[in-house]
Amino acid sequence: MTEWGAAPEHREMPEPVPGPGQVLVRVAGCGLCRSDLTMRRMPRAAGERLGWRMPFTLGHETAGWLSDGTPVALVAARSCGACRLCVRGLDNACPDGTTGRGYGRDGGLAEYVVADRRSVLPLGGLDPRHAGPLTDAGATAYHAVRRALPHLAPGSVAVVLGAGGLGAFAVQFLRVLTAARVVAVDVSPDRRAYAESVGAHEVAAAVTEPADVVLDFVGTDETVAAGVTAVRPGGAYGLIGSGGGRLDRPWFGVLPRDGEVFTFQGGSIADAQEVIALAAAGLIRNQVREFPFEQAGEAYDRLAAGTLTGRAVVVLSSGRLVV
Amino acid sequence: MTEWGAAPEHREMPEPVPGPGQVLVRVAGCGLCRSDLTMRRMPRAAGERLGWRMPFTLGHETAGWLSDGTPVALVAARSCGACRLCVRGLDNACPDGTTGRGYGRDGGLAEYVVADRRSVLPLGGLDPRHAGPLTDAGATAYHAVRRALPHLAPGSVAVVLGAGGLGAFAVQFLRVLTAARVVAVDVSPDRRAYAESVGAHEVAAAVTEPADVVLDFVGTDETVAAGVTAVRPGGAYGLIGSGGGRLDRPWFGVLPRDGEVFTFQGGSIADAQEVIALAAAGLIRNQVREFPFEQAGEAYDRLAAGTLTGRAVVVLSSGRLVV
Amino acid sequence: MTEWGAAPEHREMPEPVPGPGQVLVRVAGCGLCRSDLTMRRMPRAAGERLGWRMPFTLGHETAGWLSDGTPVALVAARSCGACRLCVRGLDNACPDGTTGRGYGRDGGLAEYVVADRRSVLPLGGLDPRHAGPLTDAGATAYHAVRRALPHLAPGSVAVVLGAGGLGAFAVQFLRVLTAARVVAVDVSPDRRAYAESVGAHEVAAAVTEPADVVLDFVGTDETVAAGVTAVRPGGAYGLIGSGGGRLDRPWFGVLPRDGEVFTFQGGSIADAQEVIALAAAGLIRNQVREFPFEQAGEAYDRLAAGTLTGRAVVVLSSGRLVV
Amino acid sequence: MTEWGAAPEHREMPEPVPGPGQVLVRVAGCGLCRSDLTMRRMPRAAGERLGWRMPFTLGHETAGWLSDGTPVALVAARSCGACRLCVRGLDNACPDGTTGRGYGRDGGLAEYVVADRRSVLPLGGLDPRHAGPLTDAGATAYHAVRRALPHLAPGSVAVVLGAGGLGAFAVQFLRVLTAARVVAVDVSPDRRAYAESVGAHEVAAAVTEPADVVLDFVGTDETVAAGVTAVRPGGAYGLIGSGGGRLDRPWFGVLPRDGEVFTFQGGSIADAQEVIALAAAGLIRNQVREFPFEQAGEAYDRLAAGTLTGRAVVVLSSGRLVV
Repeated sequence: MTEWGAAPEHREMPEPVPGPGQVLVRVAGCGLCRSDLTMRRMPRAAGERLGWRMPFTLGHETAGWLSDGTPVALVAARSCGACRLCVRGLDNACPDGTTGRGYGRDGGLAEYVVADRRSVLPLGGLDPRHAGPLTDAGATAYHAVRRALPHLAPGSVAVVLGAGGLGAFAVQFLRVLTAARVVAVDVSPDRRAYAESVGAHEVAAAVTEPADVVLDFVGTDETVAAGVTAVRPGGAYGLIGSGGGRLDRPWFGVLPRDGEVFTFQGGSIADAQEVIALAAAGLIRNQVREFPFEQAGEAYDRLAAGTLTGRAVVVLSSGRLVV
Repeated sequence: MTEWGAAPEHREMPEPVPGPGQVLVRVAGCGLCRSDLTMRRMPRAAGERLGWRMPFTLGHETAGWLSDGTPVALVAARSCGACRLCVRGLDNACPDGTTGRGYGRDGGLAEYVVADRRSVLPLGGLDPRHAGPLTDAGATAYHAVRRALPHLAPGSVAVVLGAGGLGAFAVQFLRVLTAARVVAVDVSPDRRAYAESVGAHEVAAAVTEPADVVLDFVGTDETVAAGVTAVRPGGAYGLIGSGGGRLDRPWFGVLPRDGEVFTFQGGSIADAQEVIALAAAGLIRNQVREFPFEQAGEAYDRLAAGTLTGRAVVVLSSGRLVV
Repeated sequence: MTEWGAAPEHREMPEPVPGPGQVLVRVAGCGLCRSDLTMRRMPRAAGERLGWRMPFTLGHETAGWLSDGTPVALVAARSCGACRLCVRGLDNACPDGTTGRGYGRDGGLAEYVVADRRSVLPLGGLDPRHAGPLTDAGATAYHAVRRALPHLAPGSVAVVLGAGGLGAFAVQFLRVLTAARVVAVDVSPDRRAYAESVGAHEVAAAVTEPADVVLDFVGTDETVAAGVTAVRPGGAYGLIGSGGGRLDRPWFGVLPRDGEVFTFQGGSIADAQEVIALAAAGLIRNQVREFPFEQAGEAYDRLAAGTLTGRAVVVLSSGRLVV
Repeated sequence: MTEWGAAPEHREMPEPVPGPGQVLVRVAGCGLCRSDLTMRRMPRAAGERLGWRMPFTLGHETAGWLSDGTPVALVAARSCGACRLCVRGLDNACPDGTTGRGYGRDGGLAEYVVADRRSVLPLGGLDPRHAGPLTDAGATAYHAVRRALPHLAPGSVAVVLGAGGLGAFAVQFLRVLTAARVVAVDVSPDRRAYAESVGAHEVAAAVTEPADVVLDFVGTDETVAAGVTAVRPGGAYGLIGSGGGRLDRPWFGVLPRDGEVFTFQGGSIADAQEVIALAAAGLIRNQVREFPFEQAGEAYDRLAAGTLTGRAVVVLSSGRLVV
């Protein structure tokens, strides 16, 4: 991103220099996210209020290698590590998180990025070319599932609204971490088939039964209404999708009794650690589609057109760093 | 209540006979509740769907004596004690609770009522003529505060919207159970003064600052909007007031990040036990205004007119049972 | 059990008559438990202090049919449904639980038993001849796992000490409800093989690595010491085995930092409901060995000798009740 | 501390230089802790294993001013901010915490110390000459109380074993954050009187009644046994005192049923934030006895002799930094 309101372009930039407490990371791969597509529309005033600086490199789903060859993924969101939220494990809500690697600061669509200690997550045996999406798409879906766990005792039903990238992660986490029956709801037959392939017990085009938990990755008026009213007493409705939906119904008597409604943005560092642990144990599938750096533009076009299955990752380097 | 859609009237009824597992309770006093005023408007079809039977005696805030003279309060809501909600402590959401003592079944505006073991709460040294409101107004406000406790670490702010009977209980519970600064918000100067007298650190006519928790005992469009938007990340908004309010705003970005929105109806048996423990320890004030049984009609009129401070209780018997 | 201190014997007894609020259950099958073998050694004074009455029929893992043919399992432990523990979901610790169906009251090694509403658990499609052990061996192991869940995030390690009946249930629950690596430790090669067959990732003859959770189904001096010292900071050690073990080490510095040590007896009604849900969904295996009623004595002998794999159930009736 | 095994001595040291991400703090006051007295006995091998470096300045209860005059307290324990424990709010158990400001690294008995961002806690209107003990004695006691809160519903009883500095903090936190009846147990009449003066409902020389929570700030064989056996089902026993006590009893049947036993070392950053919030709101009393720097030796002598009431703080600077 070179200036406010303009489309991103390819530019040669100097290699970044790590500041105090930071490390240099050679990027292996970087996932593309729908939010990347909207950044060119960020008004300067709003961006500056958030603390964004121009120019910056896109890409907030980054993984690569430290200088000693250790493969790592990087947490996108900045967090101070010291505020009331950070020291209680809610770093994803830290006020510093309005900027981060790939949104307002230099991100992972580059050969090198810098990172502070808190944001470096060892990958063990996982391939850093593909691991980037685990820290964002994966951690965000995981955060929702983790919030929902206390409501998902054996015998319960979990509904995932929207079976795209995040929803497919949620289906998998629900299968691994609960004994709930998992129902994926999506209008697209392709995405329903995809949800089934990653473990949904059942797929449907609409919500048709009561549930203990509904996780809404769409977030339109329709899904909010369908989701909230499906939740049984004591259950939970989690809103992750930024579809701008509202509920045109009285809350008392409509929101689930003795349940909870929650929303949030992004996953915490702990979430990202746990998603990486799940992937490293082979318990979840991180479906990606590789693009070489030269085809990053095409990858964004296909993302915008909705013709991708799985997450697009741009491969920046395919070999380990030779020191 | 003698028939659907009709105003209540005074009738002589036979003394009730306890069924298996039940006890007979001589009523000392019974609190009046705004919901009593609405029961005459319950349509027959809706009432029958809930399982209500006509005729029934009003009064769901009942306390009295067992046959051995033990003073007890009675939980109003029925609960089966066996369903998935009851055995997890969420008996206030039990499906059986659509009827109860004083709504669809005979309640406490009578000399005697029957009760099963689960609903009998020993009062220790508390006066059963006044204790009835603890089990409903008290337990409902307590349920809200109990849900909010994890969000109220030292240094936090709690806002109580609506400083009537339930709100005043909430203010007291917050003062006893947390170190939060407690702000009571009400349009009425009298109720603001009342909230101050029971311990609010601050009173105001409108929400003017961010809060960690907002408990809304009003529940109109205005209070829902003011309450939800005031909640800081990680906080909670609890809706108790049945004002029928809705939120005409997109949920994503407006509901508190990493917080929770909750609602419910009535308190659980555990809530009522804990409220009675607080009152028995002298830690809360249960402000009541006594009316003799002959003035029950007048008491309801004043309740309807909103000219009461504290809870009206109708005194049925002022002495202990002589066996 | 016909008298204190005597071995059990086979007696004809009159068909029991349900009291108020109770139902008659025709027994299909009843599991045998090692604790049955110790009851003949209960001193009269101790038994009477617990509230036991002689004679009583053994058998606390009972399932059968209601009079309308509905298959049900029965919670063994009595609970009042009204005390501070019961109304908070801790009914397994209710003071009334010192007696129950099969210990101090008539149990399931008979054609019929009586049960109150709270203790009747619908079985859906499960076979009542085999379901009895789910409510005791299953629910007890489940209670331990449920307590441990918050300590078992992805990437963690859970150790099960003792891979007998309860331990094997625990292994299965851990596999279904967590992504932890599950290690079963037992001195017996047969039981290690059994643990592997029900899903343990690894088996060992001794604890050899740090763990986030250790569930100890043995409870001797050796297992307590090995288990407690293996737990990492923030983890949990749960003691279920009644082996009488103690720890001859200073607690400070040895017990896990910021972790928890817990123990308990039996599972709650909620636990039993959730175990039945898991079995009904086909997610756990309830390995039983059938014995006809005439061979109950032989079954107890083999239980005492430790030559059984899986739980022994005595089949009382193999067909549905014909009314 | 100038070398292993030697008594501390007064030395002039160069003013420390903040490293990357660190700030310089001018010390106002520093609390003395009994653990300071034991550091001269730390064997070199053990100290080196923990990562301690000689020489280092004593003092881990430090507060002072940033260069802009902002009054701050400093968290003593080091924590990485990135490990599985830190990112879940358990930084007090971070492996890096084996060294810290005042134990193995330069502490607060000096004019200046350096600190990283995570360990700087703004004091608002609190006096930095006295605030140091809030971060260690205060935060440690608070951590125990916070762990115990879920077991302390209205109507419950909390016992504090040992009414010294930490115990007196615990009594105060329990009074502010719960409605439990608080009983302080101590063999010393002076400390019992002190406990009463800070709010204990009752004081006693020994545990004489069942309790829902026992917090043991002594930790000898006697207090462990008395404390653990006093806990009611569903309750908690927390061990904070490093008295080296063990329990010579079988755990099964003696440890509280469905309760928890826990221990830990030090408080977390979140704990320290909340203790400072309580002190800033005037809800707790931080009783200190001031000593000028020249009398630090005498203060340690009196600490060793047990002739101090309240916490000794050595005042290093009584005025704000003039830049």
